[in-house]
Amino acid sequence: MSDDIISQGEAELAQDRQHGASELARRALELLAQSALQAPADDWPQLQQKLVGYAEALSQARPSMIPIHTLSHRWLQQISQINGSSLMRVRQQAAMEARQLVAESKVATAKVAEEMTRHLKPGMTLITHSFSSTLVEGLSRFRTEDAPHVIFTESRPLYEGYYLADKLSRWEIPATMITEAQLGLFVPQADIALVGADSIDADGALINKAGTLLLALTAHHYQVPLYVAAESYKESTSVKVTDLEEMSPEEIRPSGWPGVTIRNVYFDRTPRELLSMWLHEKGATALG
Amino acid sequence: MSDDIISQGEAELAQDRQHGASELARRALELLAQSALQAPADDWPQLQQKLVGYAEALSQARPSMIPIHTLSHRWLQQISQINGSSLMRVRQQAAMEARQLVAESKVATAKVAEEMTRHLKPGMTLITHSFSSTLVEGLSRFRTEDAPHVIFTESRPLYEGYYLADKLSRWEIPATMITEAQLGLFVPQADIALVGADSIDADGALINKAGTLLLALTAHHYQVPLYVAAESYKESTSVKVTDLEEMSPEEIRPSGWPGVTIRNVYFDRTPRELLSMWLHEKGATALG
Repeated sequence: MSDDIISQGEAELAQDRQHGASELARRALELLAQSALQAPADDWPQLQQKLVGYAEALSQARPSMIPIHTLSHRWLQQISQINGSSLMRVRQQAAMEARQLVAESKVATAKVAEEMTRHLKPGMTLITHSFSSTLVEGLSRFRTEDAPHVIFTESRPLYEGYYLADKLSRWEIPATMITEAQLGLFVPQADIALVGADSIDADGALINKAGTLLLALTAHHYQVPLYVAAESYKESTSVKVTDLEEMSPEEIRPSGWPGVTIRNVYFDRTPRELLSMWLHEKGATALG
Repeated sequence: MSDDIISQGEAELAQDRQHGASELARRALELLAQSALQAPADDWPQLQQKLVGYAEALSQARPSMIPIHTLSHRWLQQISQINGSSLMRVRQQAAMEARQLVAESKVATAKVAEEMTRHLKPGMTLITHSFSSTLVEGLSRFRTEDAPHVIFTESRPLYEGYYLADKLSRWEIPATMITEAQLGLFVPQADIALVGADSIDADGALINKAGTLLLALTAHHYQVPLYVAAESYKESTSVKVTDLEEMSPEEIRPSGWPGVTIRNVYFDRTPRELLSMWLHEKGATALG
């Protein structure tokens, strides 16, 4: 039964295009909590062994998203310390620890959002690419009169920019939507470029939606600082992201032309030298 | 009546999204030839004065496209030398000169295409952005077994990349289509980046479809040379392109969100330092 939870969860994570790495990491923790409660096992060592496998499977569902790996492995570490009197007790404690991590990760996101507001002044223009839930949480804290002007991309192929448009419109934050192709034209109008992160790789590179590298190179060319808003659990301390996920070409165009391959790689890698500042839950760290 | 030809022609040029600057410059010359034959006038000086106004109007229809300006002014220069015995003769000669310029510009395009083939070797990978009729003419000269592999963008908002996909598929030239956002991922796979030009500005900057600057910055980052294939009449010797044309936001999305402005600037400016080589009808000139 718990195998079902995990294999359905794997599929769900693999197909999800709406949520970022933090949100999917929380979803993975919730699936692990359910498995801890329900997976058939004779004893705690046997259950732990299963949970290690589940955590690995969920991490592999989105190999470019370090947070799923980091938070599920942090949880495995924590539960390996548990010495319970009964299997039922141990199950409950393991589930509780997973949910505790979910709560902590939400606090971390809120702190990053709070840190972001310290760097955005009224009258500023901010440029971003793709949809970052951390950025959105930060922007939600502004009133119309104090908010920065936000320039953002539509974000092909699935137009995550539309979600951002929807929120900014409701919050009455002045905003401009452009195609990715226009980044070179609009970066010079910005005081700051700011993106979220799917992962921060072991070498300090930013793994984020494809197109982020173009924003970074353009920002560097025009000397516009590029800030990354990312909870510290997005940083990889061990594994390196070698697999930049590729999705179905049908997201770009339902059918192609004979002999023409359509590619749909979702993430790109921006080297640390192109990043100016990392906003995390403990403050801001200068990079570059 | 000739005013009608020109005002319809202006509208036609302004709305045309399918043809590049060379093709539209040829169309402008054809409209001027018709006007030279038909515009009401008492004498040759009066006709010339009208034709100057028409040439200006057609140039202004696409202010980012220097070739319309260059070729129509080259024609005005040529016809100012005409000393005819009768107005009818002068009209015919002026029209003939316009059509001669059209023919010469086609020869120039063919020569640029020929020059391009000298720089593309079998097994090479070429990356391009948007749709260049000069590039297409160059690629049409390859057989499948000698052709370079072509990586090209879909080119939002109106997907000119689809025309290229269609042609490459028919010619059985191996090709890969990507979103603009993936340029950073695919430029390192290319041996050469190659684009057409709408204009080459007075300071040597390339004016081309928005997104070209992103390709240029990425090519520079990865040390992939960027070639520009452009007939010499695309170079501005006098006017500077100050107006990067903006089209309707509805091309990007039919309706927007209150408070969110959608921008649709069609061209961007790539500084000369980012260009490696200019392929023109007389050969190749190193830039940068």
